[in-house]
Amino acid sequence: MSSIYHGQLTVTIFGQSHAPGIGVTVDGLPAGERVDLEELQAFLARRAPGGNPWSTTRKEGDVPEFLSGLADGMTCGAPLAAVIRNTNTRSKDYSNLKDIPRPGHADFTAQVKYGGFQDVAGGGHFSGRLTAPLCIAGGICKQILARKGIHIGAHIAAIGGIPDRPYHPVQLDLEDLQAPAGKEFPVLDEGAGEWMRDRIAQVKEEQDSIGGVIECGVIGLPVGLGDPMLDGMENRIARLVFAIPAVKGVEFGAGFQVANMRGSQNNDPFYMDGDQVKTRTNHAGGILGGITNGMPLIFRAAVKPTPSISREQDSVSLSRKADTKLVIQGRHDPCIVPRAVPVVEAAAAIAIYDALLEQERRR
Amino acid sequence: MSSIYHGQLTVTIFGQSHAPGIGVTVDGLPAGERVDLEELQAFLARRAPGGNPWSTTRKEGDVPEFLSGLADGMTCGAPLAAVIRNTNTRSKDYSNLKDIPRPGHADFTAQVKYGGFQDVAGGGHFSGRLTAPLCIAGGICKQILARKGIHIGAHIAAIGGIPDRPYHPVQLDLEDLQAPAGKEFPVLDEGAGEWMRDRIAQVKEEQDSIGGVIECGVIGLPVGLGDPMLDGMENRIARLVFAIPAVKGVEFGAGFQVANMRGSQNNDPFYMDGDQVKTRTNHAGGILGGITNGMPLIFRAAVKPTPSISREQDSVSLSRKADTKLVIQGRHDPCIVPRAVPVVEAAAAIAIYDALLEQERRR
Amino acid sequence: MSSIYHGQLTVTIFGQSHAPGIGVTVDGLPAGERVDLEELQAFLARRAPGGNPWSTTRKEGDVPEFLSGLADGMTCGAPLAAVIRNTNTRSKDYSNLKDIPRPGHADFTAQVKYGGFQDVAGGGHFSGRLTAPLCIAGGICKQILARKGIHIGAHIAAIGGIPDRPYHPVQLDLEDLQAPAGKEFPVLDEGAGEWMRDRIAQVKEEQDSIGGVIECGVIGLPVGLGDPMLDGMENRIARLVFAIPAVKGVEFGAGFQVANMRGSQNNDPFYMDGDQVKTRTNHAGGILGGITNGMPLIFRAAVKPTPSISREQDSVSLSRKADTKLVIQGRHDPCIVPRAVPVVEAAAAIAIYDALLEQERRR
Amino acid sequence: MSSIYHGQLTVTIFGQSHAPGIGVTVDGLPAGERVDLEELQAFLARRAPGGNPWSTTRKEGDVPEFLSGLADGMTCGAPLAAVIRNTNTRSKDYSNLKDIPRPGHADFTAQVKYGGFQDVAGGGHFSGRLTAPLCIAGGICKQILARKGIHIGAHIAAIGGIPDRPYHPVQLDLEDLQAPAGKEFPVLDEGAGEWMRDRIAQVKEEQDSIGGVIECGVIGLPVGLGDPMLDGMENRIARLVFAIPAVKGVEFGAGFQVANMRGSQNNDPFYMDGDQVKTRTNHAGGILGGITNGMPLIFRAAVKPTPSISREQDSVSLSRKADTKLVIQGRHDPCIVPRAVPVVEAAAAIAIYDALLEQERRR
Repeated sequence: MSSIYHGQLTVTIFGQSHAPGIGVTVDGLPAGERVDLEELQAFLARRAPGGNPWSTTRKEGDVPEFLSGLADGMTCGAPLAAVIRNTNTRSKDYSNLKDIPRPGHADFTAQVKYGGFQDVAGGGHFSGRLTAPLCIAGGICKQILARKGIHIGAHIAAIGGIPDRPYHPVQLDLEDLQAPAGKEFPVLDEGAGEWMRDRIAQVKEEQDSIGGVIECGVIGLPVGLGDPMLDGMENRIARLVFAIPAVKGVEFGAGFQVANMRGSQNNDPFYMDGDQVKTRTNHAGGILGGITNGMPLIFRAAVKPTPSISREQDSVSLSRKADTKLVIQGRHDPCIVPRAVPVVEAAAAIAIYDALLEQERRR
Repeated sequence: MSSIYHGQLTVTIFGQSHAPGIGVTVDGLPAGERVDLEELQAFLARRAPGGNPWSTTRKEGDVPEFLSGLADGMTCGAPLAAVIRNTNTRSKDYSNLKDIPRPGHADFTAQVKYGGFQDVAGGGHFSGRLTAPLCIAGGICKQILARKGIHIGAHIAAIGGIPDRPYHPVQLDLEDLQAPAGKEFPVLDEGAGEWMRDRIAQVKEEQDSIGGVIECGVIGLPVGLGDPMLDGMENRIARLVFAIPAVKGVEFGAGFQVANMRGSQNNDPFYMDGDQVKTRTNHAGGILGGITNGMPLIFRAAVKPTPSISREQDSVSLSRKADTKLVIQGRHDPCIVPRAVPVVEAAAAIAIYDALLEQERRR
Repeated sequence: MSSIYHGQLTVTIFGQSHAPGIGVTVDGLPAGERVDLEELQAFLARRAPGGNPWSTTRKEGDVPEFLSGLADGMTCGAPLAAVIRNTNTRSKDYSNLKDIPRPGHADFTAQVKYGGFQDVAGGGHFSGRLTAPLCIAGGICKQILARKGIHIGAHIAAIGGIPDRPYHPVQLDLEDLQAPAGKEFPVLDEGAGEWMRDRIAQVKEEQDSIGGVIECGVIGLPVGLGDPMLDGMENRIARLVFAIPAVKGVEFGAGFQVANMRGSQNNDPFYMDGDQVKTRTNHAGGILGGITNGMPLIFRAAVKPTPSISREQDSVSLSRKADTKLVIQGRHDPCIVPRAVPVVEAAAAIAIYDALLEQERRR
Repeated sequence: MSSIYHGQLTVTIFGQSHAPGIGVTVDGLPAGERVDLEELQAFLARRAPGGNPWSTTRKEGDVPEFLSGLADGMTCGAPLAAVIRNTNTRSKDYSNLKDIPRPGHADFTAQVKYGGFQDVAGGGHFSGRLTAPLCIAGGICKQILARKGIHIGAHIAAIGGIPDRPYHPVQLDLEDLQAPAGKEFPVLDEGAGEWMRDRIAQVKEEQDSIGGVIECGVIGLPVGLGDPMLDGMENRIARLVFAIPAVKGVEFGAGFQVANMRGSQNNDPFYMDGDQVKTRTNHAGGILGGITNGMPLIFRAAVKPTPSISREQDSVSLSRKADTKLVIQGRHDPCIVPRAVPVVEAAAAIAIYDALLEQERRR
């Protein structure tokens, strides 16, 4: 398998960066769910590049055509399929990747895995562009979840060590959750955002790139989503978030901080809030035993610096079996983090809606 | 679904802490693979509690009986099934969990999810005891991988902020990899280990518990295991490692450190070592585009402090819908990290052997 | 994969005929469903051999032990696991099967597939005995379905060309559906049954065996179970019924008779019965477009004659690569059909309950 | 789930008859396999309607566009996606299907299942047109299998009771296997074919339709494909063949005839042919214990008469809850059997290639 999520929903991602198209099929969506195409387009636009100093100057339309699965703007029970045509590709930029692999990219591993038959243009199936179909699937799930009162948001938690104000793990509300999505540079704290953008500008001038952290929050979740062991919410979300090519770490709630904590600190005490069971702290990130506990679900993903940088780098010639130098041509994001924010939301939306569908079944 | 890994191998974990037994089925193992039961028992013993100050004084035999899948000590092509009988259970310790959920445990979420029908004794299916069958499946995979020259090891990377010497990401060799497994307290640096044990002893005296980090390394991997997007090695390993109840974060290679790095730092330059392609650094943790690149595969898992502590804690009575106090009886690990080390190895072994079987198919 | 059904329910069959045990795990059962063990035992007894002239004189206890998944006699949400110990095995009967394969058995194909590592004793994982765990899983599903008003029954439709009275495709009622289950020899028409038993007795005397057809009916189904194309009720049921080793054909409704029919004959006209939509005939067997239409679901399975016969047969010596003769020792059913009747019900029950769980989810 | 086959290959069918397009994704194809688009087009043409008296006069281009998965005409390791645009649709023919369901169609069951949100035009996702993407996937598998010496063919075994000469179960050779594919009306015996066409012409004149049987054969299979119980070749093939909307029965080898046979007749005696193990008869249809035995694999599928007929039929008005009459407008195949022949081949090709990929892995 490769690019398939197989649960109550089956999501299949296909396409290569310079193939005729990229796209997604989603099987298992209930019939009768409205898909607001305008809202979906706005969601996709948050991932699309262009028009600002911190992303590549390539333009990607990212306008999906729905080939099937909809009737009169509603899901009809049949598998949904959406395609984005690839245009504005500059194939000449990527000519010698089969011989001289780019550090930090999949060029070398794909060459060995696929015996040289891989589509190397633009990174082929490994291109970050393949997160667009993930956003189509996730964007639809996000719309459906929102109608059920479950809201997902994300923001840049840090770039190059500069932190944004974090989501409040207990009091996270809809306003804070959604505020970043309304901004071109999705942070909570404008001052932090300005500092980050300065850092990105500096990095770009140095022909370099920089990494960051994305924090995602979900509110309005019922108690009971997810399953023990291999299909807990952590497993499901991690599996989907690691589908984003640059992600190298995922943590929930207090995350790696739990390693420094005592049980008496880390345990979230229960209390009654009216007739609802809540916890006073939320180190668990809203998940106990793999199952949502009704508190905000919080996780973070570490995003590595874009491996495509303009500086000369050390590599090898696979044909000559010799060390060599490499200069990558073309236009690149100096920092992929801002564009990855909606993708993290999309990944979370698929995982959560899938778990919700399963839980609805069990009632 | 709950406790199933479904790939080339299908691993099904079953059992509850106080049910007649716990166990595992493994479908898809090639016929003709020897299972060394003595070696497997030694592996399981590393997870089993007892006999030292940093784990619970409960004794768990953890001797699996193989009901099927073997003939003359070899896999025979039929699904393998192994069962561990539950003995030495103390049911009285856990009587009121359905009413007063333990903080940090799945008592509350399971109560809601299963409508009160869950088996609450000893944590039921959520018990850490369920990692024993995971170790049976993983231990068998580990043996097969070792015969193919692929070796997996893990150690305590930190407890309560006290770090062990990390695995060298580039020069990790078999000796360092396996040294921790030979010790009752699996660390590389004995001094660090002593300091950690002191900390655990102190925490125990304070009726508290403490978390830590486990680092896992894999050497001898061929280039080419794993798939793009949803079945990359990160996705596969993360999904399995999050099956360990206490894990709250997983990171690969430089992990969350990538957020602070430049592309020029994080990219691992390629070079030729004889006719082998290697990288000078290994921030990628041996994975590029989800696919192994032949360098050591390195990841870390954050383990939360045992939620079962003897101190009085705040909780609620679900029946009375009122706040209350809770004192957990029984014997508990003050630190689960040492016993979780082989479980992390087992999780990695399943993920890697599954990817290897898939890759063998594709050649 | 081999012995796994993977849908809303995941059913894993394990065991070999002469291994320590055989069994099943069932994941995905909702919590809070009562499992009536006495009723289940009665269901398993219908499959068990012994005590009459038309089955082997071997005794199989077939008493399952539930290792997990139950608490106080109810499903608890955790995966269910049940084991039947193998006893009363006569290993000496099957000594030379690795060299001289039995015609009509899997000895030869297993030898090649598993490279000689297969467990050959008693047919190993290919033994008809493995239908016992299928009956455990199916028997539980059947109980749950009955509580929802969905009833499954089956009978011997024919043995060696002697037909029983068929289920009425439109007027099938609970009495006819369940009558066969109450008899040691499950037919509707006693006269036909006597004739069949005479035929079996004759065949047995001739050291031969004989095949037959089993017809299964399901009433009380809601409209809407099943999915188009690959997960229609035909696909699901066929996949499960072909798990019964001797089945060589499956047909729904008019089945192979449709090949001789006109559209004007085969189409089932709709009419209103009160406010319910019904069809006047039921050539569709209750399934339109893969989806139940509320009429009785009817299908038939062709069961081949037991391949184990006492007569001398032609075979080969794999080691000597030469033709040879074979006489199979041991006790065998002259006709497997009567014992396969509950297995067909079990297969149908799993398929139908799985589809019901999926449909409940979609509402 | 609905339209997904999930094994070593994952095949996802999408589309509705009158949606913008229909198509398929295939994940898991090894890289480096040539796809001969011309040969594929010729294969699809066998399924496409038009130009002769026994099929609808609608024209369907059925020219797939490959959006991804290919590079330079070879599979590249990325998921393959192909789309066929829907043109020449006559939406007005199908206006009142939501109220007055057509007998023998999925109109009623889809209405209930999808709550009225289904896409009813042209049968939506239930249209026979959805077998075109199945043929794309199967056609590619068939090409790859042929290069490995595994050949698949099918022919009309009977229409309305008029039989073609059957495939010889033991001596089936490439010539007989492929001869039908070269003909517009795919039979072995021309005389039988003429008689069948006369019958179809007569049926058409009577505004009626007629059913038939398709026989499929596979030669060149290695011993060892398929798995016991739930993933035997019978299970796999049946699951895929029942994806063809009109199929109501599937049988292997002697099929339903086994019900009338003795074990001494039905068992296929082994003998040595040089150093190859063969069987003198082939009642097993090349499958023992779910696993190929190296003999020709033979199965038959019963195809119901096209439910769309021009005669007035009895139906109901769902809105008025009253009986009514229905006359279906539009152009229809009087017999779907000839066009379904390549679809059966496609279904078999997917099942067999999937099993081959799995078996290659296990060696």
